[in-house]
Amino acid sequence: MSEFGLIRRHFQRPAPAGLLGVGDDCALIPGGSSAWAISTDLLLEGRHFFADVEPESLGHKALAVNLSDLAAMGAAPRACTLGLALPRADDAWLAAFARGFHALADQWGCPLVGGDTTRSDHGLTLSVTVFGAVSAPRALRRDAARPGDDVWVSGTLGDADIALRLLLAHPDRRAAAAITTDPAPSDATPLFHGTGLDAWLQALPTAAAARLLADTRLRLERPEPRVGLGQALVGVAHAAIDVSDGLLQDLGHILAASGCAASLQADALPLSPALAALPAGAARCAALGGGDAYELCFTAPRAHRDAVARATQRAGVPATRIGSIVAGVPTTTVLDAHGQPLSGLPRGFDHFS
Amino acid sequence: MSEFGLIRRHFQRPAPAGLLGVGDDCALIPGGSSAWAISTDLLLEGRHFFADVEPESLGHKALAVNLSDLAAMGAAPRACTLGLALPRADDAWLAAFARGFHALADQWGCPLVGGDTTRSDHGLTLSVTVFGAVSAPRALRRDAARPGDDVWVSGTLGDADIALRLLLAHPDRRAAAAITTDPAPSDATPLFHGTGLDAWLQALPTAAAARLLADTRLRLERPEPRVGLGQALVGVAHAAIDVSDGLLQDLGHILAASGCAASLQADALPLSPALAALPAGAARCAALGGGDAYELCFTAPRAHRDAVARATQRAGVPATRIGSIVAGVPTTTVLDAHGQPLSGLPRGFDHFS
Repeated sequence: MSEFGLIRRHFQRPAPAGLLGVGDDCALIPGGSSAWAISTDLLLEGRHFFADVEPESLGHKALAVNLSDLAAMGAAPRACTLGLALPRADDAWLAAFARGFHALADQWGCPLVGGDTTRSDHGLTLSVTVFGAVSAPRALRRDAARPGDDVWVSGTLGDADIALRLLLAHPDRRAAAAITTDPAPSDATPLFHGTGLDAWLQALPTAAAARLLADTRLRLERPEPRVGLGQALVGVAHAAIDVSDGLLQDLGHILAASGCAASLQADALPLSPALAALPAGAARCAALGGGDAYELCFTAPRAHRDAVARATQRAGVPATRIGSIVAGVPTTTVLDAHGQPLSGLPRGFDHFS
Repeated sequence: MSEFGLIRRHFQRPAPAGLLGVGDDCALIPGGSSAWAISTDLLLEGRHFFADVEPESLGHKALAVNLSDLAAMGAAPRACTLGLALPRADDAWLAAFARGFHALADQWGCPLVGGDTTRSDHGLTLSVTVFGAVSAPRALRRDAARPGDDVWVSGTLGDADIALRLLLAHPDRRAAAAITTDPAPSDATPLFHGTGLDAWLQALPTAAAARLLADTRLRLERPEPRVGLGQALVGVAHAAIDVSDGLLQDLGHILAASGCAASLQADALPLSPALAALPAGAARCAALGGGDAYELCFTAPRAHRDAVARATQRAGVPATRIGSIVAGVPTTTVLDAHGQPLSGLPRGFDHFS
């Protein structure tokens, strides 16, 4: 058992009746006519974000990654709390952080209602908890995928991964930890980390690398949680998850919880123009394995294709059909244009390895 | 403006209609027939607890300090989440931490429903958020004290403060930060820190100091949140707060929010046998200024004295009448046995000074 498997052993207990506990995007607790969906994240300087990250972006992202978990349950945001451990209090920094945080909170009707502030001796630590409302029987859970479902993903994949790799490739950043959200505690075997992709990016001419970073950086630093789409998919989708650790890894959580397999079409993966201009192998590595996308991956029955289209139109966020759920042990096969399975698939970031 | 006053400026905004936001023990958000009370705390190694603290006690205390906030609102615990940033995962340590956490969670029906785990490069960081249910119009708030109210406090005061001072006096601990919960961001002027009390404790013979530590330490490391008493006081008490930063400082929050003053009797302060055996000045300093007590301080009309007695009996926790609320600017006067006001009052810990 990996050392972080130990944590799961000690803290993951069966949820009491009526509650959905540890192991989905959010916990669900009953409350009146609807349930409360709750998600919490701990973000550490040097591990989840760079010490010199632009504070308005950090304020945005700290809330965005939690709202993304509510989106993956189909929940409507209601309120949030913020814990801040700060090495110092700088007026301009705090004003910018608060501006980014509050702007996103206002956008989705998720006011900051409480918190805790303390001084830190070791860099900035953020703790955000969000609360949303959802009809419990209709919440989008990880364990609801069924063979025959289509597999969909919103928006485009891979941009944030490319931006992160380019930032980490900067000499000053080589020692810094990554900016992505940690995956859940996992016993996973060592993962493919896209070293080939890193080498390719590092061989890019400086101007081309700068242009690619400019084209992709916003997706890393200002992810847009798919809150409206998640709610629109309630009653339409079967299972859903947000892509925080890489499509294959996050879809894998749906497959494990639902007890089925997936078959994807590599050519169907939705890419931004910047990613579509890269060599196919590089773009696929980022799209399949890259974290920090904060798109929704969801499954829905074929009979719901029109309903999915209406939901995406209502939310103003496109979604692309990338494959299907099939019976079998929980694995994902990715097929090329000739129907041949790709090998050496990336598996997403693992910050514990 | 102090530097942590800046934080309040940027994050404390008016709560939306129907919500009680930043500035009470808990946030309140509407939900069905009752409201949800929410409290969150961030606990850092070296600042809120010693690196070598017994892990079962730490697990207990991490939840206890949050349950104490629910108690101060009169809320019934429903669920909690835990964020853990760990430098390493040690099986025995985690098992003991989880045992302490779950035992208290089970005692008050507050199951752990979600969380986040990450690796830390700088010691242990804990983030706990608790959710409770309370009828919003009946919640015990800070702003509800009225002139003529009695001032009450549950249990006994000062033991945790004495234990902490004795632990900090150990040579290995002189550099360590305190174990108490941080006060809210505050512009308070520099506070009296009980240096006289520290000097008196350090002059104690070793055996006497060890005995005093043995008598008081459990109150520091295993505080019992007054959850049952808080619920029993709904409809009986006017205002309530939990004593985390010192009686005078926490009562001061009630006075500031309610716009009135308080007059206390020094001889009425409830003391454990260990504290009652100390010189009166030492015991009063700890009882009036000591943090980490996690007792409830509340106000109730004189006509409710019998109802308070019934509530304390039902909860199995005694409460002592220590003074009264009077009209005036928010200050606390403490009178000695001759009716003379004490001077040089301690004001509670301030971790930002």
